[in-house]
Amino acid sequence: MNYLCLNGPNLNRLGKREPAVYGHTTLRDLESQLKVLAAEFNASIDCKQSNVEGQLIDWIYEAEDTGVDGIIFNPGAYTHTSIALRDAIAGVSVPVIEVHISNVHKREEFRHHSYLAPVCVGQITGLGTFGYSAALRMFLEG
Amino acid sequence: MNYLCLNGPNLNRLGKREPAVYGHTTLRDLESQLKVLAAEFNASIDCKQSNVEGQLIDWIYEAEDTGVDGIIFNPGAYTHTSIALRDAIAGVSVPVIEVHISNVHKREEFRHHSYLAPVCVGQITGLGTFGYSAALRMFLEG
Amino acid sequence: MNYLCLNGPNLNRLGKREPAVYGHTTLRDLESQLKVLAAEFNASIDCKQSNVEGQLIDWIYEAEDTGVDGIIFNPGAYTHTSIALRDAIAGVSVPVIEVHISNVHKREEFRHHSYLAPVCVGQITGLGTFGYSAALRMFLEG
Amino acid sequence: MNYLCLNGPNLNRLGKREPAVYGHTTLRDLESQLKVLAAEFNASIDCKQSNVEGQLIDWIYEAEDTGVDGIIFNPGAYTHTSIALRDAIAGVSVPVIEVHISNVHKREEFRHHSYLAPVCVGQITGLGTFGYSAALRMFLEG
Amino acid sequence: MNYLCLNGPNLNRLGKREPAVYGHTTLRDLESQLKVLAAEFNASIDCKQSNVEGQLIDWIYEAEDTGVDGIIFNPGAYTHTSIALRDAIAGVSVPVIEVHISNVHKREEFRHHSYLAPVCVGQITGLGTFGYSAALRMFLEG
Amino acid sequence: MNYLCLNGPNLNRLGKREPAVYGHTTLRDLESQLKVLAAEFNASIDCKQSNVEGQLIDWIYEAEDTGVDGIIFNPGAYTHTSIALRDAIAGVSVPVIEVHISNVHKREEFRHHSYLAPVCVGQITGLGTFGYSAALRMFLEG
Amino acid sequence: MNYLCLNGPNLNRLGKREPAVYGHTTLRDLESQLKVLAAEFNASIDCKQSNVEGQLIDWIYEAEDTGVDGIIFNPGAYTHTSIALRDAIAGVSVPVIEVHISNVHKREEFRHHSYLAPVCVGQITGLGTFGYSAALRMFLEG
Amino acid sequence: MNYLCLNGPNLNRLGKREPAVYGHTTLRDLESQLKVLAAEFNASIDCKQSNVEGQLIDWIYEAEDTGVDGIIFNPGAYTHTSIALRDAIAGVSVPVIEVHISNVHKREEFRHHSYLAPVCVGQITGLGTFGYSAALRMFLEG
Amino acid sequence: MNYLCLNGPNLNRLGKREPAVYGHTTLRDLESQLKVLAAEFNASIDCKQSNVEGQLIDWIYEAEDTGVDGIIFNPGAYTHTSIALRDAIAGVSVPVIEVHISNVHKREEFRHHSYLAPVCVGQITGLGTFGYSAALRMFLEG
Amino acid sequence: MNYLCLNGPNLNRLGKREPAVYGHTTLRDLESQLKVLAAEFNASIDCKQSNVEGQLIDWIYEAEDTGVDGIIFNPGAYTHTSIALRDAIAGVSVPVIEVHISNVHKREEFRHHSYLAPVCVGQITGLGTFGYSAALRMFLEG
Amino acid sequence: MNYLCLNGPNLNRLGKREPAVYGHTTLRDLESQLKVLAAEFNASIDCKQSNVEGQLIDWIYEAEDTGVDGIIFNPGAYTHTSIALRDAIAGVSVPVIEVHISNVHKREEFRHHSYLAPVCVGQITGLGTFGYSAALRMFLEG
Amino acid sequence: MNYLCLNGPNLNRLGKREPAVYGHTTLRDLESQLKVLAAEFNASIDCKQSNVEGQLIDWIYEAEDTGVDGIIFNPGAYTHTSIALRDAIAGVSVPVIEVHISNVHKREEFRHHSYLAPVCVGQITGLGTFGYSAALRMFLEG
Repeated sequence: MNYLCLNGPNLNRLGKREPAVYGHTTLRDLESQLKVLAAEFNASIDCKQSNVEGQLIDWIYEAEDTGVDGIIFNPGAYTHTSIALRDAIAGVSVPVIEVHISNVHKREEFRHHSYLAPVCVGQITGLGTFGYSAALRMFLEG
Repeated sequence: MNYLCLNGPNLNRLGKREPAVYGHTTLRDLESQLKVLAAEFNASIDCKQSNVEGQLIDWIYEAEDTGVDGIIFNPGAYTHTSIALRDAIAGVSVPVIEVHISNVHKREEFRHHSYLAPVCVGQITGLGTFGYSAALRMFLEG
Repeated sequence: MNYLCLNGPNLNRLGKREPAVYGHTTLRDLESQLKVLAAEFNASIDCKQSNVEGQLIDWIYEAEDTGVDGIIFNPGAYTHTSIALRDAIAGVSVPVIEVHISNVHKREEFRHHSYLAPVCVGQITGLGTFGYSAALRMFLEG
Repeated sequence: MNYLCLNGPNLNRLGKREPAVYGHTTLRDLESQLKVLAAEFNASIDCKQSNVEGQLIDWIYEAEDTGVDGIIFNPGAYTHTSIALRDAIAGVSVPVIEVHISNVHKREEFRHHSYLAPVCVGQITGLGTFGYSAALRMFLEG
Repeated sequence: MNYLCLNGPNLNRLGKREPAVYGHTTLRDLESQLKVLAAEFNASIDCKQSNVEGQLIDWIYEAEDTGVDGIIFNPGAYTHTSIALRDAIAGVSVPVIEVHISNVHKREEFRHHSYLAPVCVGQITGLGTFGYSAALRMFLEG
Repeated sequence: MNYLCLNGPNLNRLGKREPAVYGHTTLRDLESQLKVLAAEFNASIDCKQSNVEGQLIDWIYEAEDTGVDGIIFNPGAYTHTSIALRDAIAGVSVPVIEVHISNVHKREEFRHHSYLAPVCVGQITGLGTFGYSAALRMFLEG
Repeated sequence: MNYLCLNGPNLNRLGKREPAVYGHTTLRDLESQLKVLAAEFNASIDCKQSNVEGQLIDWIYEAEDTGVDGIIFNPGAYTHTSIALRDAIAGVSVPVIEVHISNVHKREEFRHHSYLAPVCVGQITGLGTFGYSAALRMFLEG
Repeated sequence: MNYLCLNGPNLNRLGKREPAVYGHTTLRDLESQLKVLAAEFNASIDCKQSNVEGQLIDWIYEAEDTGVDGIIFNPGAYTHTSIALRDAIAGVSVPVIEVHISNVHKREEFRHHSYLAPVCVGQITGLGTFGYSAALRMFLEG
Repeated sequence: MNYLCLNGPNLNRLGKREPAVYGHTTLRDLESQLKVLAAEFNASIDCKQSNVEGQLIDWIYEAEDTGVDGIIFNPGAYTHTSIALRDAIAGVSVPVIEVHISNVHKREEFRHHSYLAPVCVGQITGLGTFGYSAALRMFLEG
Repeated sequence: MNYLCLNGPNLNRLGKREPAVYGHTTLRDLESQLKVLAAEFNASIDCKQSNVEGQLIDWIYEAEDTGVDGIIFNPGAYTHTSIALRDAIAGVSVPVIEVHISNVHKREEFRHHSYLAPVCVGQITGLGTFGYSAALRMFLEG
Repeated sequence: MNYLCLNGPNLNRLGKREPAVYGHTTLRDLESQLKVLAAEFNASIDCKQSNVEGQLIDWIYEAEDTGVDGIIFNPGAYTHTSIALRDAIAGVSVPVIEVHISNVHKREEFRHHSYLAPVCVGQITGLGTFGYSAALRMFLEG
Repeated sequence: MNYLCLNGPNLNRLGKREPAVYGHTTLRDLESQLKVLAAEFNASIDCKQSNVEGQLIDWIYEAEDTGVDGIIFNPGAYTHTSIALRDAIAGVSVPVIEVHISNVHKREEFRHHSYLAPVCVGQITGLGTFGYSAALRMFLEG
């Protein structure tokens, strides 16, 4: 089995940007942890990040075309504004789990709504980078 | 370590009520699975369910008073209507993770808002009964 | 055939509370009338009342489990606030008719919306206690 | 005693239009059933239908002028848009009961609000054509 | 100079319908008073009433085609619901003054908004039938 | 009989400010015309203007105390923002007619709502300075 | 094949009313052009116009009953206010295309919403009278 | 004279829960203070607390039936969500004063609205536990 | 200790304006009662009233500058409209208690919101003029 | 004459993504059809697609600079979210027609609003890929 | 050239009120700095402050009448509530620049809207007292 | 000191696009002026423009990493739609001033809200290209 971990805008700064909100783990650390977990189940996981909405859409279709078995997606702020990403997720058969590091419900009102959640399998928020592992484990054994 | 799994209104019917939405696992099945997982980590977990809002509040304070280390809480429909439960969670130091079996964001508009999420650690939705395990694992190793 | 007449909060005061709005018939009078009507059709009807939301949920599931053929339900003010009761009604196969004694549409804006009506067979409002009889007759001959 | 059954827009197609929503009884069938029920009580009932809002208003005033004892009114879609009909009902002393064949609360949001209900005696929804009989019975014996 | 006094739905009942709100002057009385006032200025005024929205639209275009110099229009409840009437008024060069007998701002929220006022010269509300005279006088000497 | 013509903020600039909207008649011109009309009916009228909300309130009570028979009030922009003026009008027995020179309904959304109209006798808008005369005439002969 | 071109309120004035918005083509011109286009495809088209909502409903059912193959419908302002017309369209099997001459999205907010579009095949706006031809061509060859 | 001090959800934790918001006085301390104050006026006061909405309703009716002269009611979070409690207060003749320890207007938007205040005598917020004494004093000497 | 009782717009008419709402006690009576109560505690209280928003702001700063120990403020209708007064209260260190004689929650929707309450210590509504005494007592012994 | 057919996000998957909604025609098929139609009129058409909002903006300006005579634009989900694209269209003199394959009015509420329609010539929705041809024909002969 | 610096409610306390928000510069300091800057350009500037809305309106007209070349206006909280001030600014030909010391967009929702900005040249927020200098410089050399 | 002037979507067309709104100065002209001003203070400024949201995010982080001392940012239409840009600005320590050439408050409602302003130092609108200079001067000497 092969999975994709997709990170959206600003997550390239993970560990550096607002550590009080997002913690000190870097994106590289996170990706390493996921690869280890996948390997435990004899699976593999690719990790990509972009700040460009259209690039993320392209990768979602590429995942579909290359037979990826599941996507763990932290869409960052595009969660709240991108109908185009919603259409891409709805347009592929690969299951997607939405992950947010911080508890978005504790923050500004405009972070409470997700355009993507209704077309994803589910959503994990507020569990820090553990949320990515939980999502991967859901694919691996859920 | 000792945990509490708290289920709110209508979850006594788990496995029987709207299986297309909530699946076929019964509440008893679910509780057994959680106990097994806890035991793997030399921890224990108590499981309680009530349809009465005030009873759930009482149990949250009781958990605080008896030194419970974390609460996994599926508040059912009280998620969207109970400020009293929010006050109880805010009023204890025990960390709480909110879990929903179904993907509430796919359903009616009034299920998209949670009064409780802002005072919980985080929220897991749409991962079926796996969400409870993920929450427990968060407490055990997160 | 066996039916259930379920009354929610404040209806224990029927005949005493705000008679200008709700009339002078007591809950006991009403229940007697319904039993007479049921008997005319060789059917029976049980009558229960509670001010506790969770108790009403329990009785709905009990009705399902004991093979009740239809529920006439006046949910009182929980009509406008209880998603938990909605979930219970949606979770049973027993048909439910929602009844209100007063014309809720003549009253405050917040009484115009019902969380329950969309999962009931239908709704009768403003016909006084006659509404209960009409609902029962709907089950008996509708 | 003499009553009027007034049907608004699109009800001339009853039994033909969207039978999954409105059933297979035709307007003619319905009117016959009401006449039979009225006769049982030594009363009579006239039945009229129009797609024109202004014509319905005219008939309401005509009912007032000819001493009709009660109107059973299914205003169809004018329920949600016609303040002019509301003014007509408010402007006569004849009591009016609003009837809807389908459960409007299960349908689009804009069908949940009635401009007419606050000036009617009450409202019956979702009981199919039985709702008309129930309304007539309310006048006859309620 | 020749004017038109146009009355919309329910105003055929003026003097009979809700006299506490609309007074005891009948439509016939009102029309006579306007004819007298017009005559004082060597002008004439025609008076028409209909409950049918489409008929009122037809008369507005007829007024344009026959060279009427001004329309005094009480659109009744269509004030709040008819964009079609707005389009008709906007589509003619005859100036229109909107008149309401009652103080609509004292009444239900939905009576506070007029689709027509923005395409009329102005609006007079709450001055009883005197409002019609004031509008006519505006045309005659304003 | 003695009347008061009260003008609110910015009306001291009448004839100078935005003549495309408010015309070229000055406040002085307007006041003279009203005095002439009052005199025709053997009545008198005082005219006051202030840009200060509290001053206008004081004058309304002064009118009450000195036995003024009616107030013609153009509250300018305070129409849309002053609940304090509403309370003053509601607190006196002198009848008040609200007048606006321009057609406020043609302008910004926030000019469509009046806090004062519900406690006034009625409202005249869009008839230019003729609206003041019409209001005065309503008091004199309405 | 036989089609119906149905025009709603105020379109009898096409070419005369607000030419800056609606152009100089008259309704008669438009109807001629459609008949020519239909004939090119050996089809025919009937053309009707009314300002009365109920009349338009009647014609939609008549089209159903006489086997019309498609309706090109410009509902004018009833687009934004008529749920009764929506019900009629939903109640027939004849496909309907909604056409607007002007670009309604450039105009007032209340013209942006259509009650009818969701039950039509589609909608064409802002292409002038060309929109009718495009709709007809959709039926003929789409 | 005999009074009732009724406390709603979470107030059993007074003095322990969020002391920065609610202070260090316990419910027991508060009740003692009220009893002392009542005794100064030769009156008595009973004190009850429950987290169950339905239980609070029952006690309100019990107060009515046992001739209690006034209720000091801190409904906690039910203030913002319980129409059922509103109906109970409206259904008894005992006067009720609503008390909140914290300044609810300084807190989340959803705490600014009270379903109960319109059917109470009045409301005291933000004065800490002094608010209870002030309410009692209102009954005793107000 | 020295206090200030500040009354806003229309309260100069207390006892005369709408006695059904505000009672028969005059402002002078009220001020005398407060002075007596203050004296009992060897404190003093000044009383001021103005209909001018800017004057009230000036007095709040004057109170700060002269060392007043607490302000009892009935802002009348400015409660609902004045952000400037809010800024003044937030800008001084003197504690302020907001008092309303009538139960504002029973009245129009726009009276339910207070711009001032969030920057005051607390708010008392509906207790008549007793509310002023309660506020003063809060300062004296609260 | 030279035209541009511009397709926005997700339309690269046309024919593959959600065929129940968007049909089986691929983007390549569609582009071929448009080229054939253009050639019939001795015109040409270029076709471009991108998932990147900024790329679409660049192409709009490029069209302006290279003298394109008209743009047929299916902005996909950017229709509902992109003010930047609106600004680009408003900033060029090339006329733009907005096309949607599906009937957006039948779908989620957030698909009913277009930021672009007000600055386009017009909009075609729900006619499948025929809508592109209709738009092109509008440019060629409209 | 001669300019006017106009400061609205609460700005008399600049440097004293909420220094964390507004800084330590006093109004006197600020006015001195502006005079120095104006003098550098051989221009002059007058400085006025009032807490009274009507007084500010008077000064705006006075500026118009005395030929002032530009107004730098910090309207304080009247920014968000005063349509009367908007009308005054719209009614003069003197250009006005709106200045706020704090970043109003960081503060409460109700501070995000300005009634005045649409009739001013522009708005500067959040730059502290430097904003006044920037506005003056805009007049002097912009 | 080194600064960055960042321009968002459509600003590459400055001087060409809608000159009535944005003026005739080109982006190149503007950038030259800023360089001159910076040089006067022995500082330097880089200037970049992109229509791609993700590119702008990248440049903000690059500015942080290269030690830029301040960013002057005109985000164009992304002001109103980009939470991702907000997150980037919040995620760097470089101060940002938001600049708009036109007075956005005079334009469409959706241009009145900025997602970015709350995380910027401040905002300048409506002062044309002078706004950029003012922002730079704020950094240089503010």
